[in-house]
Amino acid sequence: MAELAIPMIGGSGLHSYSRNSTFQRKGVELATELINKGIAEKLDLSKFPSSNAFRVADLGCSVGPNTFLAVQNIVDSVELKYKSQGLADLLPEFQVFFNDHASNDFNQLFTTLPPERRYYATGVPGSFHDRLFPASSLHFVHSSFAAQWLSIIPKELLDKTSPAWNKGRIHYPNSAIEVRKSYEAQFYKDMQRFLHARAHEILHGGMMALVLPACPNGTPHSRVLLNKTTELLGLCLLDMAKRGIISEEKIDSFNHPQYNATFEQVEEIMDRNGCFSIEIMEALPLEKPSPMAFSSVLRAFLEPLIEKHFGPEILDELFDLLCKRFEDSFSIIDPEETNVSLFVLLQRKAI
Amino acid sequence: MAELAIPMIGGSGLHSYSRNSTFQRKGVELATELINKGIAEKLDLSKFPSSNAFRVADLGCSVGPNTFLAVQNIVDSVELKYKSQGLADLLPEFQVFFNDHASNDFNQLFTTLPPERRYYATGVPGSFHDRLFPASSLHFVHSSFAAQWLSIIPKELLDKTSPAWNKGRIHYPNSAIEVRKSYEAQFYKDMQRFLHARAHEILHGGMMALVLPACPNGTPHSRVLLNKTTELLGLCLLDMAKRGIISEEKIDSFNHPQYNATFEQVEEIMDRNGCFSIEIMEALPLEKPSPMAFSSVLRAFLEPLIEKHFGPEILDELFDLLCKRFEDSFSIIDPEETNVSLFVLLQRKAI
Repeated sequence: MAELAIPMIGGSGLHSYSRNSTFQRKGVELATELINKGIAEKLDLSKFPSSNAFRVADLGCSVGPNTFLAVQNIVDSVELKYKSQGLADLLPEFQVFFNDHASNDFNQLFTTLPPERRYYATGVPGSFHDRLFPASSLHFVHSSFAAQWLSIIPKELLDKTSPAWNKGRIHYPNSAIEVRKSYEAQFYKDMQRFLHARAHEILHGGMMALVLPACPNGTPHSRVLLNKTTELLGLCLLDMAKRGIISEEKIDSFNHPQYNATFEQVEEIMDRNGCFSIEIMEALPLEKPSPMAFSSVLRAFLEPLIEKHFGPEILDELFDLLCKRFEDSFSIIDPEETNVSLFVLLQRKAI
Repeated sequence: MAELAIPMIGGSGLHSYSRNSTFQRKGVELATELINKGIAEKLDLSKFPSSNAFRVADLGCSVGPNTFLAVQNIVDSVELKYKSQGLADLLPEFQVFFNDHASNDFNQLFTTLPPERRYYATGVPGSFHDRLFPASSLHFVHSSFAAQWLSIIPKELLDKTSPAWNKGRIHYPNSAIEVRKSYEAQFYKDMQRFLHARAHEILHGGMMALVLPACPNGTPHSRVLLNKTTELLGLCLLDMAKRGIISEEKIDSFNHPQYNATFEQVEEIMDRNGCFSIEIMEALPLEKPSPMAFSSVLRAFLEPLIEKHFGPEILDELFDLLCKRFEDSFSIIDPEETNVSLFVLLQRKAI
């Protein structure tokens, strides 16, 4: 099956990702401090073969501005490390690789690159579940709010004869256990492919920072804020089906391709791969957004997916409905507990 | 002054560059044999530091398909070299950098990459007159029908008080000597910047293949086919001015930003830079295209420039007029003598 490759909304219009990524940016800012700490304390410059270039990749970068903030921070932090170790004379040049699906709006990304950047910018089209770079060519990889996307929808979710058929729902948190297991199994496969590819590409001693929306250990999946919102989105769609605007079959055949793993699961996946040591692993508490802002954020990253499946004509009504449902529900959601991302800083082991 | 950055026509429509680049493709094919010869006979693999990656860049790549043919040939040829030298076990992975201005249609480029490619593809937005890559990071650079574009229009061409004011013309071949000297000086400056940047970026022993539309030594600039065509284009514009469709001032302030150097001048520029040895330098005789085909080719690479200066409403009429003028003139043009490109294969000296 062809890999899913649905980009965020490109350009810079009202609903574009570039204007509606503040929710993710908060995560980037919190991760920034941990990345700086990791580079200062854990990155060993002497491990790298001498080279004129320090290569950084942001995987699943979308169109900015978050990706520009993230890579600039990494460049600043590595420069500081060289200088603080008295190695200012050996300061390398930086080459930054912005990666996303080929259908991402790279034209928008390239024409909005920060003019004052101190790195050579490149774009890399393709799925990060496969190899994207030559072996041992990257020093630092960053990926924020991207690796939770599944590469495909497991086929049993669409099979009426399967116990994992996800009738009447668009996500796993309130579905039969078989549905969640199916999502989970796909996430494990995807993450193994992701880590396998990166293990080839990252130099020994190189680092990788991942930020993932996740589910704290012990919290039911259904209480995680992002899962709650997809549940509400599903209810809005059912509402529209009842009014004859869309068919129920359309809902049965739609599944939101994102899995928010538990912290334990992420750790287990890293252990299974075995090529990386976990240097830092921390929960990032996120802000509780306003219903309006959150609805816009969700639209920026879900619209292309929903438009492809349900058609463009339902979009405005659907997201208006969602905003209203958010207003009704947000007062009873505890963001401290349920709106959490996971930050992991990994180091490529020398095996 | 901001650098000129006018892309070819993107997308895949009737007038797109991707459908109208056969004129350039002929040059790519002829250059292919010379590149293969150069790699087989002149590339010394032992000069490179051991690395997992062989890095190739195509500068001024536009949107394909010519760039894909060119880089695939380089990859094939280098692979053959490794194998023929019994070094198949050391065969590196290939990383290819497709460069053009940030306003180039990279979305089109990325979504049409050959699916069976055996290299990691990346896009690099920016002017090749400046640095684009870390020092000593490229093994082979290719640039075809790109370096003849000037980075800016010299300001004296637009200055009514200057002897280089190019009144009533849009190019240099039939203008006052001061006009040609002004184009020439800008080309020298631009090529020096180009070579200076590449001298930093290309590893010692690395190679660079350039294809340029050029003027054979001893041939008057006005007889070169490409110059002839810009002259005809200028006459079409004057014709439209006489009929009141555009103003004469608009023509006075438009100058086609391309200089087709003599072979001697190219050699002199390489010598002045001093960082590269000329391994192969040959004229590429090109086919004589049909008036219709040539008009389409010209439209694909001139339309954005002309549209920006004169507005979109004149385009159809202008290129219809041009096609008619081609039909009247082509029978008396000798393509053997006048439609020539220059191929140069350079090697980065170890100084």
